[in-house]
Amino acid sequence: MKTILVLGAGLSASSMIRYFLERSETYDWHLRIVDMDVEMVKRKINGHSRAEALEFNALNRDERLPEIQKADLVISMLPARFHVEVAKDCIELGKHLITPSYISPEMKALDAEAKAAGVLIMNEIGVDPGIDHMSAMKIIDEVKAKGGTITSFKSFCGGLIAPESDNNPWNYKFTWNPRNVVLAGQGGAASFIRNGEYKYIPYHRLFNRLDHHSIPGYGDFVGYANRDSLSYREIYGLQNIPTIFRGTLRRPGYCEAWNVFIELGMTDDTYPMIGTENMTPRQFLNAFLPYNASLPVEEKFKQFLREDRIHLYERFEWLGLFEHTPLIGIENASPAQVLQKILVDKLSLSEGDKDMLVMLHEFIYEINGNKFFHTSYMVNIGEDQVYTSMSNTVGLPVAICAKMILQNEINLTGIHLPVYEHIYDPILKELESFDIKFMEEKSEL
Amino acid sequence: MKTILVLGAGLSASSMIRYFLERSETYDWHLRIVDMDVEMVKRKINGHSRAEALEFNALNRDERLPEIQKADLVISMLPARFHVEVAKDCIELGKHLITPSYISPEMKALDAEAKAAGVLIMNEIGVDPGIDHMSAMKIIDEVKAKGGTITSFKSFCGGLIAPESDNNPWNYKFTWNPRNVVLAGQGGAASFIRNGEYKYIPYHRLFNRLDHHSIPGYGDFVGYANRDSLSYREIYGLQNIPTIFRGTLRRPGYCEAWNVFIELGMTDDTYPMIGTENMTPRQFLNAFLPYNASLPVEEKFKQFLREDRIHLYERFEWLGLFEHTPLIGIENASPAQVLQKILVDKLSLSEGDKDMLVMLHEFIYEINGNKFFHTSYMVNIGEDQVYTSMSNTVGLPVAICAKMILQNEINLTGIHLPVYEHIYDPILKELESFDIKFMEEKSEL
Repeated sequence: MKTILVLGAGLSASSMIRYFLERSETYDWHLRIVDMDVEMVKRKINGHSRAEALEFNALNRDERLPEIQKADLVISMLPARFHVEVAKDCIELGKHLITPSYISPEMKALDAEAKAAGVLIMNEIGVDPGIDHMSAMKIIDEVKAKGGTITSFKSFCGGLIAPESDNNPWNYKFTWNPRNVVLAGQGGAASFIRNGEYKYIPYHRLFNRLDHHSIPGYGDFVGYANRDSLSYREIYGLQNIPTIFRGTLRRPGYCEAWNVFIELGMTDDTYPMIGTENMTPRQFLNAFLPYNASLPVEEKFKQFLREDRIHLYERFEWLGLFEHTPLIGIENASPAQVLQKILVDKLSLSEGDKDMLVMLHEFIYEINGNKFFHTSYMVNIGEDQVYTSMSNTVGLPVAICAKMILQNEINLTGIHLPVYEHIYDPILKELESFDIKFMEEKSEL
Repeated sequence: MKTILVLGAGLSASSMIRYFLERSETYDWHLRIVDMDVEMVKRKINGHSRAEALEFNALNRDERLPEIQKADLVISMLPARFHVEVAKDCIELGKHLITPSYISPEMKALDAEAKAAGVLIMNEIGVDPGIDHMSAMKIIDEVKAKGGTITSFKSFCGGLIAPESDNNPWNYKFTWNPRNVVLAGQGGAASFIRNGEYKYIPYHRLFNRLDHHSIPGYGDFVGYANRDSLSYREIYGLQNIPTIFRGTLRRPGYCEAWNVFIELGMTDDTYPMIGTENMTPRQFLNAFLPYNASLPVEEKFKQFLREDRIHLYERFEWLGLFEHTPLIGIENASPAQVLQKILVDKLSLSEGDKDMLVMLHEFIYEINGNKFFHTSYMVNIGEDQVYTSMSNTVGLPVAICAKMILQNEINLTGIHLPVYEHIYDPILKELESFDIKFMEEKSEL
């Protein structure tokens, strides 16, 4: 029997837990799951004989260590900042570990120790990061195997609302942590390289510098730049590529409208506004518009939008920004917290709504003097509000990787990403059986 | 004989030192001055028998304490972050201290200790902060004495180039630390209150929300909001005032053009750009503009400006932003550092140039049912590049306050600002003899 210890069982763990439970007889797995919310874990396990809901505090090392000791494999779905502590325990006890999160510098620094202990710590194996690495590396490796040279690589990912549930003027609902959506893009200029020229986009223009794309059967999308595109040159072995760009997908119009929030100053999370507890949405908006004794907020906002963006007006009206109710009801809230409250009231999922995960890669490369444009895209729709697309695309690659480790199909030690063919190839193949499938189109230029 | 110890003798100390030397016989003063640059101190003293250039390290407590012990009064013109340490020494040794800088929370916390020691620590007694406090409080106290209620107070200050030296399209030259000018307004939204409504302006719109003003004989100015206007309600005893606004003055057009730098992302000081050592001004500009294979930088920049701001184009051309020379020549420079390099090359003072300090207050108040609009303004032009307006307006209030303390004309202890009539009144009067004189205009509304 093999024991899998799962630390943290929130939203994105549901599909992974189901995968393990459905295969637990076949592979003789025993699943031990801990989360602050034990009842939630019990619901997800639903009485399955090969699973156990644990009650210890996963953030307490003394409580965690004996549980790791009992496991054959550890999966940390805890918030990313806790992974390094867990990794140190796993190295000490000689246990493999999987996390879906970005490798932090502290995690990277454990590489030699992990190797010395014969331990594999696989990171960035959810979706963005995860499926993006795997699906991109598949094409990059194919092109390299044919002696080709990649001159341009653009890659986009977006967590969106499924077309059948897309019924508001923003063409968006929160399918993931709203706070991250409100703060998206903050913390520094976005940087990338385009035809050999380094480019920098400050936060307050980020949602105005857009890449337009269509995906067959799913319509139009626009992409705004992620903060860091440049480090992917190293990760993907494309050190000298003249164009590399990573972005986030939204439906057309969303980004231009979102930039209005940024321009107004409504996404600032660095200071508390005065009187937010009894503030109306209208007062919130007015606090960012100039004083004018003779113009109502609506007219001042139209002036702010300018003629060329006046078509966005309806989106803001729909959010209730001109209304006197409801009161924000949060003391000393930052602009970002107030905005989040207003948005969550309007842009949350309704019962029956499904989410959608979209990924798109665009390559330009040359092989033997011929130039190709090659796209690869994947659209996945969630099953329901438990087995969401987000849960499937984050959890299933983790689960499949776990199976491969337990079946001794991976012979790596140290700190890794899923950028190796013997890892990404079987995972991408198995993901297809869950309708997480990349379509490719290639044309000669 | 009274001994004055001056810590730090940079640009803004020249006029103060001259004031002390010219009166040293009359008042029997002995001046002891320390600065890292001893030769500069010697030049400023110019062999005067009542002054001494000291060579100790003013930042070292052990070296500083015996010097403070010998003094009757200490003046710290050191960078603001060092004032608190000096203040602690002065309290310990029972010596009065003057600094022109803002009261930090740490300084404020020394109030009880200073009082217990019978020590006065007078702060914010240069120009903005300093002359602004004094000239505003004079009017505020007058209105209050007449039983009036102030409903609006706007106050502006600007360090600019004198009209006779104003010969570039920016109508601006660096008369103060260029780095502070490049970073001006960063670090949080500007907040103020207008007719009872709290208003917030994010940094990227700060230089586009402008107040227009004329000053008789000196033409037009525009003011952008300072970050903090609200705390002045407490300082000036105007707790319930419905409108209070503090701003910085520039010549018309400067702010709109400066906002273009901000919008582009060129004032960001948080990350190093790649390849700045060998970067051209043109490449620097291009890094913030979208890639376009068929448009030159000039055309992309015009598109960025938009039609309504195209009149600003000349300012950027004049700065050499489209040129291939000179190379920036600084490794790993932030955008703000690169911009500063480009600006310093063009906007520095030329020989013979004079600076100008402009201050403007606008009050609206009611007395006995009558409503008044009352302005008070001061324009001061520097004498030369040593006795600049900045040096005069910072150093002379400090010097006059020093004289008053040494003549036992101030009976305060603790941490203070110059907001008391028995302090500001004689200082403002004496400043008039240095051509630092407020003109007032009052009309009934």
